[in-house]
Amino acid sequence: MFYELTVVQFTKALNNLSAILDKGAAQAEAKKFDVSVLLNSRLAPDQFNLIRQVQIACDTAKLGVARLIGKTESAPVHADTETTLLELKARIQAVLDYLASVKPEDFDGAAERHISQPRWEGKYLTGTEFAIQHAIPNIYFHITTAYAILRHNGVDVGKKDYLGAMPYKN
Amino acid sequence: MFYELTVVQFTKALNNLSAILDKGAAQAEAKKFDVSVLLNSRLAPDQFNLIRQVQIACDTAKLGVARLIGKTESAPVHADTETTLLELKARIQAVLDYLASVKPEDFDGAAERHISQPRWEGKYLTGTEFAIQHAIPNIYFHITTAYAILRHNGVDVGKKDYLGAMPYKN
Repeated sequence: MFYELTVVQFTKALNNLSAILDKGAAQAEAKKFDVSVLLNSRLAPDQFNLIRQVQIACDTAKLGVARLIGKTESAPVHADTETTLLELKARIQAVLDYLASVKPEDFDGAAERHISQPRWEGKYLTGTEFAIQHAIPNIYFHITTAYAILRHNGVDVGKKDYLGAMPYKN
Repeated sequence: MFYELTVVQFTKALNNLSAILDKGAAQAEAKKFDVSVLLNSRLAPDQFNLIRQVQIACDTAKLGVARLIGKTESAPVHADTETTLLELKARIQAVLDYLASVKPEDFDGAAERHISQPRWEGKYLTGTEFAIQHAIPNIYFHITTAYAILRHNGVDVGKKDYLGAMPYKN
């Protein structure tokens, strides 16, 4: 289930994120303000701005998957230098391309894999713990915060933009 | 994995939510304002306030699990009448008690179960689709929005409050 939980769903979530950024750009154009005002907005003075929220959502997706498949170095590297919407969308696309390169069988053994990060000082979580308690809550945190920054600034986004289309069946 | 993804993790997430509400109450007391100001805050005039975000997070947890185990009527019913922090925390506790009553084996067959909701007009998602694409993103959406409302109003909450403790191992 790791593949569906991460690769497939993170792909959907990042596409939804890209679409709400486009809504922000459309609003900026319609109201004749610079979209960079939105990109540099935040909900509290000591909170990351929208650019950084998007960067972290991207990193959570690419590194979450790369660590679960035991190939941290396979994830694309980004220098966190994006300042424009075009650059942010290129970063999202790079992560989408990376996710598309990962296959279900790459997750063999992921549940029991020991996952660590530099800041954890040698400690680890199992793959299951990492996915459920860390990567998944984290990506939704940053995408929802990006959504909230746009929403707070009057961009016309709704829950359906966040969730994306559902594969309803009759 | 459904049990860990929903019952165990939703329990953790709701406890984290309860803790950040307490931080809001502590801030209100320290700064001598009524905590109901926070409870009625929102990030946009046409967005649900903090009370409603908590109510929906609770409903997403209880109904998400109840639908996955094929026993929608087993979830506790709430009338959405909470106006105080004490009442909101009681609602969270009622959902925590319900989640504690669900067992891993209750999820037998959940992956293929047809899940529907009144507003879906007879259409359905499989249990796997419902969990991954609907219930999980939804609960984090409402908890992160609750967090963002508190954060925007100066309550001293951070990412660790949202994620909760990690079961790090040496």
